[in-house]
Amino acid sequence: MEVTIESALAEHSPIGVPRADLEELDAAVRSAAERIATGREQDEHGYAALNLPDETDPEPIEAAVESVTPAENWLTIGIGGSALGAATITEALDGDGATYSLDNVDPAAIEALLADIDLSETAMNVVSRSGRTAETLANFLVVREAMETAGVEWTERTVVTTGESGPLATLADRHDLPTLTVPEGVPGRFSALSAVGLAAAAFQGLDLEAILAGGRQAEASLADSLFESPAYAYGATMYALEARGANVAAMMPYAESLEAFAEWFAQLWAESLGKDGRGQTPARALGATDQHSQLQLYRAGPKDKVVTLVRPRERPSVPIPETDQDAIDYLGGSDLRALIDAEFDATEASLRKAGVPAIRIEIDALDPAGIGELLYTMEAACIMAGELAGVDTFTQPAVEWGKDTARALLRGEQTLETVDGLSVRTGPESQ
Amino acid sequence: MEVTIESALAEHSPIGVPRADLEELDAAVRSAAERIATGREQDEHGYAALNLPDETDPEPIEAAVESVTPAENWLTIGIGGSALGAATITEALDGDGATYSLDNVDPAAIEALLADIDLSETAMNVVSRSGRTAETLANFLVVREAMETAGVEWTERTVVTTGESGPLATLADRHDLPTLTVPEGVPGRFSALSAVGLAAAAFQGLDLEAILAGGRQAEASLADSLFESPAYAYGATMYALEARGANVAAMMPYAESLEAFAEWFAQLWAESLGKDGRGQTPARALGATDQHSQLQLYRAGPKDKVVTLVRPRERPSVPIPETDQDAIDYLGGSDLRALIDAEFDATEASLRKAGVPAIRIEIDALDPAGIGELLYTMEAACIMAGELAGVDTFTQPAVEWGKDTARALLRGEQTLETVDGLSVRTGPESQ
Repeated sequence: MEVTIESALAEHSPIGVPRADLEELDAAVRSAAERIATGREQDEHGYAALNLPDETDPEPIEAAVESVTPAENWLTIGIGGSALGAATITEALDGDGATYSLDNVDPAAIEALLADIDLSETAMNVVSRSGRTAETLANFLVVREAMETAGVEWTERTVVTTGESGPLATLADRHDLPTLTVPEGVPGRFSALSAVGLAAAAFQGLDLEAILAGGRQAEASLADSLFESPAYAYGATMYALEARGANVAAMMPYAESLEAFAEWFAQLWAESLGKDGRGQTPARALGATDQHSQLQLYRAGPKDKVVTLVRPRERPSVPIPETDQDAIDYLGGSDLRALIDAEFDATEASLRKAGVPAIRIEIDALDPAGIGELLYTMEAACIMAGELAGVDTFTQPAVEWGKDTARALLRGEQTLETVDGLSVRTGPESQ
Repeated sequence: MEVTIESALAEHSPIGVPRADLEELDAAVRSAAERIATGREQDEHGYAALNLPDETDPEPIEAAVESVTPAENWLTIGIGGSALGAATITEALDGDGATYSLDNVDPAAIEALLADIDLSETAMNVVSRSGRTAETLANFLVVREAMETAGVEWTERTVVTTGESGPLATLADRHDLPTLTVPEGVPGRFSALSAVGLAAAAFQGLDLEAILAGGRQAEASLADSLFESPAYAYGATMYALEARGANVAAMMPYAESLEAFAEWFAQLWAESLGKDGRGQTPARALGATDQHSQLQLYRAGPKDKVVTLVRPRERPSVPIPETDQDAIDYLGGSDLRALIDAEFDATEASLRKAGVPAIRIEIDALDPAGIGELLYTMEAACIMAGELAGVDTFTQPAVEWGKDTARALLRGEQTLETVDGLSVRTGPESQ
């Protein structure tokens, strides 16, 4: 993996980091790296996530999955950090078998899914650390009943992933379900390299050991200087850019199979660093597609962004056939991989020309090791950015009020003052 | 449709619009509405898009689609505005038959798609106004060759959607392909309610007339006051919020099938309004899922956002089965639609409590009329915001340099100075 921050320096962008400031930034990185190392040694909450590549054992994950399969379909029933890691890994690596995330409570979507799949060929993984997540439990209850109605013995098709206690642990115990543990001290959004993120990958027959080895490769390259550690180079540069006005963090992988990665990153970055009145807003983009959507804004809009461009160095070859049409003859005889890489290079150069800071991340390949390395690197980068910003990286206090309120609304214990007032309606009845 | 801007007022948010300023804003809306009306009357470039619901004739679209079907699969080969409208409509309404967008040039993705679908059961729609879009032409050449290799007569399976002249028009002429026209004066991102956006919907057997009738419903509610027009209420409020510091426009529909709509909106907003150093950054979100991802940031991060919450008023019923587990018993006997609506209400209230401006958009249902109305409303809102900001809403000059450069790179006419310099690598070779 290589992280290139050159285009994020002040000599290329008015909001870039002055090269002369990097030494001072690196002194802060050194202290933060020490704090992180101590946290890891003592398995402190959050920091413990960076030990996962050493501590996750693929064997029980594979055994749990085996005990409820073979099956054609795998449903991960979870939300947020309980779903995004699994989706990111399986979408990036695309092994055998269909995987789905039930990570919303949209009745139309679940109705369509249940009509679409063969429940007798479906296994599910219910994931919630607390065992109380409303969306997850509601979806589980619905799918369980659908299985019962279809004559499928759900207890033979369900893996539970949860903490030591709680309603899901009780349920698993009562029905003797195979159970995986959400590791202690690891917040959901940092749990991709644990049973939480890896069970769906095991279903797809992916090489969990290779994913973890990729994580260990990234772990081995943590160092106490941004000049020596790709993860800390990324985290520290993002921190410094935010301080200089880059309030938007656009994440733009040039690979369709990394779309879910961009969503995973958006959660990691927003929920970890969005607090105390600060935090960059992640904007998920996709290259080359979003050159025809977001690039106009990135180049000509406010100078309040940093764009992270991600690509694999290896891609399959898909030759573009020759054509006798003059206007497009330059395409013929080329290859889609040459085209997408030309677009990547041109976009990077065009951002630089417009003075928009950009960071390039290149992984060797979209293979298990590459994904393990990428996920670990971004987690470590996020923790570094959080240390430098002095925020409490591992909590998400601002979402509790809404959760409590939704629960109280459903219980009928509370009503909300309706947000009405100024509204405008279509049609003959409009005021 | 109802647009509620109450929570975007200054009495609820430090960056909200003072109620006292609305009259002044409305005077500007009046002038802008007149300018828009004149542009429409004279079919001026861009403004002409707002005439589409009256001018689009479903019949030739349906005839062109019929001439290359029946088929199981429909590939829209286009990028940006040539693909997003079709994707938005088909994903929202989910008719019969599988539709795909080939809107990127990722060799891994196209390889996977071609391996996955039966080409003898596939029709394609190649969409490019100029007929020269590199990504679109490259994908077309690849798919055409794959069809030839599979023994499929591609000329019987291809609809071309393009402008009056150009390489695609020439090709269609030479091979006598059914051809649809990208309407004059309508930029790609405003073309959802033309043949560009509607061919895929016709393939799915959706009611084009009803989609257009929804557009006409929105058209009929344009007025020269923000107090009387949902579209102009939205556009003017967004403009006023940006002026007060809302640099991020989060678009958060509470419906899985509106994910593509959020992408369509992101293109519409970014490419139309992101110029002259201004323009909000669209952040695509999805309710309720992203409450567990982005809400922490929205509530506790910088006060630089407006969140648009969209929902349909009708949803199917999916009852949540009863459970004897105490901790979650409040869910049992409820319904997923009550749960997602409780989460919507709680999120809206929680944003208001945190002083984050929010706008609520409610459509009657996720049906053809509802989608037509929603798309038209957002287009008119965008044009209003552009008028108020004084930008050239219908152009995208900042993307040309990158396009030219990518083309020159592929032609071998140019090399780029590599963006290297400061980079950090993983592994033993890291510097």
